[in-house]
This record gives sequence, structure tokens and C-alpha cells, in this order.
Amino acid sequence: MKEITEIQSISFVGSGNVATHLAHAFQSANMRIHEVYSPHLSHVLDFTRKFNCVSCKSVQQLSSDVDLMLLCVPDNQITEVSESISPGRAIVAHTSGIEPQDSLSDKIRQTGVFYPLQTFSKNRKVDFRVVPLCIEGNQASTCELLTQLAYKLSNKVVAISSPERAILHLTAVMVNNFSNKLYGMAHEILERNHLDFNLLLPLIQETAHKMEEMSPEEAQTGPARRNDENTISRHREMLKDFPQYQQLYQLITDQIIKKRHE
Amino acid sequence: MKEITEIQSISFVGSGNVATHLAHAFQSANMRIHEVYSPHLSHVLDFTRKFNCVSCKSVQQLSSDVDLMLLCVPDNQITEVSESISPGRAIVAHTSGIEPQDSLSDKIRQTGVFYPLQTFSKNRKVDFRVVPLCIEGNQASTCELLTQLAYKLSNKVVAISSPERAILHLTAVMVNNFSNKLYGMAHEILERNHLDFNLLLPLIQETAHKMEEMSPEEAQTGPARRNDENTISRHREMLKDFPQYQQLYQLITDQIIKKRHE
Repeated sequence: MKEITEIQSISFVGSGNVATHLAHAFQSANMRIHEVYSPHLSHVLDFTRKFNCVSCKSVQQLSSDVDLMLLCVPDNQITEVSESISPGRAIVAHTSGIEPQDSLSDKIRQTGVFYPLQTFSKNRKVDFRVVPLCIEGNQASTCELLTQLAYKLSNKVVAISSPERAILHLTAVMVNNFSNKLYGMAHEILERNHLDFNLLLPLIQETAHKMEEMSPEEAQTGPARRNDENTISRHREMLKDFPQYQQLYQLITDQIIKKRHE
Repeated sequence: MKEITEIQSISFVGSGNVATHLAHAFQSANMRIHEVYSPHLSHVLDFTRKFNCVSCKSVQQLSSDVDLMLLCVPDNQITEVSESISPGRAIVAHTSGIEPQDSLSDKIRQTGVFYPLQTFSKNRKVDFRVVPLCIEGNQASTCELLTQLAYKLSNKVVAISSPERAILHLTAVMVNNFSNKLYGMAHEILERNHLDFNLLLPLIQETAHKMEEMSPEEAQTGPARRNDENTISRHREMLKDFPQYQQLYQLITDQIIKKRHE
């Protein structure tokens, strides 16, 4: 079997947000998408049209005449899918933040991870040049091939082990999912009071952009940071109709106050 | 006493971040800063040099020959300071997010609020044109004069009552102070594992910018949103050395899961 010296053709398993955004990025980098398999037929049609590729009816039928098979499937399907495919000489990589590399079948010769550390939504463009791509490979050559490929999409490519990636994923959940939940709480409270959530947008964005220039510790301001008991108790009172948010308010406030004394 | 028809000269009480950023914005809009009082002598020197204004030795000695006296002092000093000054014909306004307008002395004829809904850090420039300015006045004419002034700095000027402003301030604390605390938790966990916090910056910024296009509810993704128990329990396990963060993780996760069923 001829060794791969450069990844030139790619097939996808999965056609959701991660697959679509990655395929876009590959297309923009003049890479060829060969084939896609996904059980979601309406997605598949969209995918094949957008990326000018073929689709196939089952994972087993994926052509092995490619350099990379990229699994963009739910975490709990990675092992099963990897056991069903016949990769031939292709590298098989998953794109999960939390699954270890060895969740891929050990019958496959070259396995790896290609994890884009970003949040993807339908219809929202992402500038891939700044998206960190976290790479892992079961062999040094696999890691190198995936790294070369990653640099075609992004300027930020890092070799990250499975345990490190899991920690990155945990912190990604905190700064993305959890911050977004705080936005959601604010949205709900403002709506209840007929106030416009858009008023908060410049603040939300400035909070994020401050991180370019200072650490979160330096950027921490507000009543908890000052231990301003008067304001904290007024806020608590305003949250009396939202007991769960009140509990969360207190917990985060306590942790900010505690940090002052460390 | 001649009525004010347009605010043309301004004095500041306070010389911290809010005062400095507002003074910059006024200066950029070709407004004259007349005078400043602050007990922090080193700040004052800096302020007078930057804004080409005079300083005075006590609140009582502030010249009353201005149109607006802007109090940029800690919340718990607003009442006392407003009782000490002799405003003459000047409007006296505070810049607090949470203090009601009537915390200003009722002996002053025209009082108001000029609250910029933004986070200010030393040495970091802010684009004031997009900062919402929340205005309140004890008379219709006061509100109008402050509104006119606000439009010289920003395109986003809103009349907001004291109770509404307190709610905005609560939600500002959530999206700014609390999101920043989540960034801080992520920073701490990554540092402990010798991983680079900068890897999260594109994600942090994308999370904030998504709010331009979709609601927080639409943008919510992640293991809690999918009720992915496997990932959640792995994350909890990773946080076993951070019991307080583990508690916070669970609380926010529970609230995201709960929201799915509403």
C-alpha cells in the first residue's frame, strides 16, 4: 500500500455543523472533498451540492481511495463508526473535544484527531485562519500529515494529547456554553422587564475583547470584586423571582470575593 | 439664574476609570472640561494634564460656573458628595448603574443620571459611539439636556428609569463580571495543566459575537444542552481538585438541562 505523503483528498462521515464548517474551510483552501456519508438524507443532499462531492449509502461503502476520513459524528458513535469502515491506506481522524484518540478502532493503521476549538452555528461564517486546530496522531507521521493539512486552514495548529484536549474542552464549555447561559439569564430577566437585550451587546463584546490585552484576574471588576455588600444584596433582592439564578449569583459572587483574599 | 439651554462646560468629581473615559469622550466631542475634584492627588495631576483643566482642593470649592457637575464617585459617596457641593445653576448627575436618581440631594434643582453601560479599564480605549448611555433627569428639561449631551458621545442614548437601570446593572454584572469569572476559572485550570489560555480567545470572542445574530437560547450548545451525561460526568471528574468550580459546573449545567424542558 502506497504511503501518503500529503493529504489531498478527504471524505466526511457526518454532515452537521462541524462537518459543514470544516468542508467549507477545506474548499476555501482548494482541497477536494471526495465523498460524504450521513444518515441525515436532507443534510447530505445539501452537503454534496455545496461541496461538489458524492454521497454513499452506508459507512461500509465509503471508498477507501482517499487520504483522510474525517469523522464528524456524535462522540458516542466514534468507536462504532471507526469499526465499520474500511479505510484502506486512509488516515481516520475524529473531531471530538473530549473523546480520546484511542476511542478509534485499533484495527486502523493510522488514526488521529483533528479538533477545531471553536463553536459552529448554521449560517454563521467562521474565520478559520484564527481557529486553533488541535492535532493528535497514533504515529509521528500521522501527526505530521494532519499538522500539514491543518496549516492549510489555520495559522494556529497545536499538537495536543488526549488528556490535554479533554481539559481544553472542559474550559471551552465554561467560556462558551456557560457564558452563553449567563447571556441567556440576562436575556430572560431583561425580557421580563421589557428591556432590550441589545443594550448589553457592546458590554458583552468588550468583556470578550479585554482578554486580548489583560488576564481575567486583571479584568475582574464589579460589586463582588469590591465586596460591595450593598449592591450585592440589592441584586439578590431583584432576583427573588428567580431562585435558581439567585443561587448562581451567590455562588459566583462568593468565588470572586474569595479570590480577593488569595 | 440663567437657564441652561445646552450643556457646554463640565466639571468632574472623581478621577478614576469612569471619569477618565468620559472625559476622553467629551474631549473628542470638542467639549470643554472645566474643573476636577478628587481626593486622589496623583490621579488629579494626570487628569488636569490630559484634559487641560484646573483642579480644586475640596468638593465645596468647585466653581458653580459650569453647566454640568458629573459625579464619578463610589456609589456610597453619591449622597454625601451631592450634599456638599454648591451647584449654582449646574445640573448634578451621577454615573452609577445601581443608585437611584434620588440618592442625589433633593436640595439641588436639577439632578440626573448619566450611566454609560460599559466596562472601563485603564489604558484600554473604548469606542464611545456604540456605548449605550442611560439617561434620567428629575425634570423633563434636565433629561432633555443630558440626552442632547449624550448624543454628542454616542449613537445609543436611552431614557431609563432608576428601577430599570438597576435591572440593567444586574444583568451587566452577569454578562461582564460573571463571564469574566468563568474566563478566570478556565485560565486557572489551563495554567495548572500548562496549557495556553490564548487558545480559548477565538472561542471567547465568537461566543460574544454570536449575540449579534441570534438569541442566547438559539446559540446554546454543548454537553448540557444535549444532556450528554457521559461528557458531563467526565468534566465533573476533571474538576475534582476544584470542588467550588465543580459545584458551579453542576449548577449551570442543571439550569441548561432544565431549560430544555421548558
